[in-house]
Amino acid sequence: MLVVKKFGGTSVANKERIYNVANRCIEEYKKGNDVVVVLSAMGKYTDELIDMAKDINENPPKREMDMLYTIGEQMSVALMAMAMNKLGVPAISLNAFQVAMHTTSVYGNARLKRIDVDRVKNELEQRKIVIITGFQGVNKYDDYTTLGRGGSDTTAVALAAALHADKCEIYTDVDGVYTADPRKVKTARKLDTVTYDEMLELATLGAGVLHNRSVELAKKFGVQLVVRSSLNNNEGTVVKEDTKMEKMIVSGVAADPDAARVAVVGLKDEPGVAFKLFNALAKKNINVDMILQSVGRHGTKDISFTCSDEDADEAEKIIGEIMQFESIDVNKDVAKVSIVGAGMQTNAGVAAKMFEALYDENINIRMISTSEIRVTVLIDVKNVERAMNAVHDKFELGE
Amino acid sequence: MLVVKKFGGTSVANKERIYNVANRCIEEYKKGNDVVVVLSAMGKYTDELIDMAKDINENPPKREMDMLYTIGEQMSVALMAMAMNKLGVPAISLNAFQVAMHTTSVYGNARLKRIDVDRVKNELEQRKIVIITGFQGVNKYDDYTTLGRGGSDTTAVALAAALHADKCEIYTDVDGVYTADPRKVKTARKLDTVTYDEMLELATLGAGVLHNRSVELAKKFGVQLVVRSSLNNNEGTVVKEDTKMEKMIVSGVAADPDAARVAVVGLKDEPGVAFKLFNALAKKNINVDMILQSVGRHGTKDISFTCSDEDADEAEKIIGEIMQFESIDVNKDVAKVSIVGAGMQTNAGVAAKMFEALYDENINIRMISTSEIRVTVLIDVKNVERAMNAVHDKFELGE
Repeated sequence: MLVVKKFGGTSVANKERIYNVANRCIEEYKKGNDVVVVLSAMGKYTDELIDMAKDINENPPKREMDMLYTIGEQMSVALMAMAMNKLGVPAISLNAFQVAMHTTSVYGNARLKRIDVDRVKNELEQRKIVIITGFQGVNKYDDYTTLGRGGSDTTAVALAAALHADKCEIYTDVDGVYTADPRKVKTARKLDTVTYDEMLELATLGAGVLHNRSVELAKKFGVQLVVRSSLNNNEGTVVKEDTKMEKMIVSGVAADPDAARVAVVGLKDEPGVAFKLFNALAKKNINVDMILQSVGRHGTKDISFTCSDEDADEAEKIIGEIMQFESIDVNKDVAKVSIVGAGMQTNAGVAAKMFEALYDENINIRMISTSEIRVTVLIDVKNVERAMNAVHDKFELGE
Repeated sequence: MLVVKKFGGTSVANKERIYNVANRCIEEYKKGNDVVVVLSAMGKYTDELIDMAKDINENPPKREMDMLYTIGEQMSVALMAMAMNKLGVPAISLNAFQVAMHTTSVYGNARLKRIDVDRVKNELEQRKIVIITGFQGVNKYDDYTTLGRGGSDTTAVALAAALHADKCEIYTDVDGVYTADPRKVKTARKLDTVTYDEMLELATLGAGVLHNRSVELAKKFGVQLVVRSSLNNNEGTVVKEDTKMEKMIVSGVAADPDAARVAVVGLKDEPGVAFKLFNALAKKNINVDMILQSVGRHGTKDISFTCSDEDADEAEKIIGEIMQFESIDVNKDVAKVSIVGAGMQTNAGVAAKMFEALYDENINIRMISTSEIRVTVLIDVKNVERAMNAVHDKFELGE
């Protein structure tokens, strides 16, 4: 069996943790399996590198920033190989040049295009544990690139796909995917399995366990993902295509406090207004999430949308520059709460049941957005935990 | 004109120094010249990396050690590129993969074989300053290697040779090459020029300004070297083939306190004894310098040699294991003092004059070794400064 294991920065933050990871990988290796390990930079080292760069140039060229970033993962993999060798197991570290992780050209946010796995296969055939730098790639100019947020997860899944690995284990500081955040909902329960689509919705909603690009990739190539803890041996949650599993209507509740609502009131009611507005935001790389358009007074229309707290002020500025309207309002004290579940598609009344739970708690819903397997509401951030618990109870997710 | 400039770790140890180097390079660039910059790791960062590795594994695999080492130079070049960009000059950093610095396979002490300069030339044509990681290379397995002590000097000279650069400037914390160490000999004087051979002898003798491999390479490819300070604009010392320069008989006095004498007394007087002894040391990578063999008592022979202080105990152990002899003595309280000069070849009595200077100071000579342009004596380490001054005065080097 070939297993790809990915460990994040906290899992390799110091000597003890490096040895903990080394031992886990060796355990797998000693079962006779082939083991590929993908690592992030140690602890907060990437942040240290950013500080270092900003001290020199507050606006460093992205190409050079990627050149600097990549040393973080290279440090992790070299030290990990040393730890495994110390434990008597042959191990070798490889960076993006050595694995030939081909990506698009965009610095800071590249996408993997192709991986040449010859070197990796060759090292595995020699019965070595192969330790690979996550997050980094090489573009057509032969320059380092990085994959953006959650990049190491993507590296791991892409390697698992390219190597036809039997599974790809993503190690985190939680036991797996829960029906809700256990810190906020006491009755939250770990799920044994979720589908790719459910995981995708959860990832997008900031459930924080897996980055959505890695889930998309896993879905596309049918890579069996396992989310599990690096701190214990619990089984974790398996993410795979739903086949014969018993379908739950709703599999989880997620919340994302990093949401702001921008409401533009009194826009001209003519064609192209929405296009003009959202096109301008897209050009500045502002991701817009929920969108709501309604008819305003005196032949005008109103458009509301959500974006991240960070982008809200810039969005306000851009709209102020290019649009004509009566007023604009930004509210950062809002949060998204969502229910996700593949079973929703075939079950009517799921959304209504969620709204009822919120109504019972007297929580005001500001916006609503739905997909085939998700219902999201925007509420005041102060009500988030109460809302999560109410919804979690309503759907009896803890049972 | 194309100039390769190499700066060591102290020259890029912090933000101010990075900007100092950036400004110097930009000054050259603004004259219309093409500029290639070779950097070492910042300050004591390489030592920090060693500590980090030893904490994980006190005997780390050399291959992984090189993987770890290379991040030091990569950090320097990325930050330097950011600084130059901040100063408004286009600059790009490149590592050993990007430049294709092909080396032999030996980790930790590889030798450069070939450099593909296409990428460098291409960037120079776009009028960028090209900043390259010193010390590192890539071997035929596509693994990082490092060039051993003084490796960045070698990188700079090799690049200058491959690019047919007009000169290769090595920046250090001293003004150039002196007739003796100015901290020890008050009357020491900076030399405007030295020949490759003189520089080679000085480097080998621990004068510490340039590593001998870089000088050898410069000689082989006729690269004009300049040794100068990164702290001022003084002219420095030019190292080149002696052509029409006025020849000095002796150009400098050098001392190397890192020497130990190993004396093996009462070896069998039969063929192959010296071979057996030095072959065993060579196999353990112990470099032997001065060798003296004399006839001992009762049909035996004695062999004395010098090596570094670090290697002395191991040498004693190895010899103890494989040879038969009466006694062995290791003395680490000795040092080498040498005079170097291309003019020596054609001047008789130079060695005698040196011995006279030491005799006048009542300094005992323990061993003597000579080359065409060098005379070296081994003396007690406590006499080194007195010996250097006496010899320096005798040859009137300060005038």
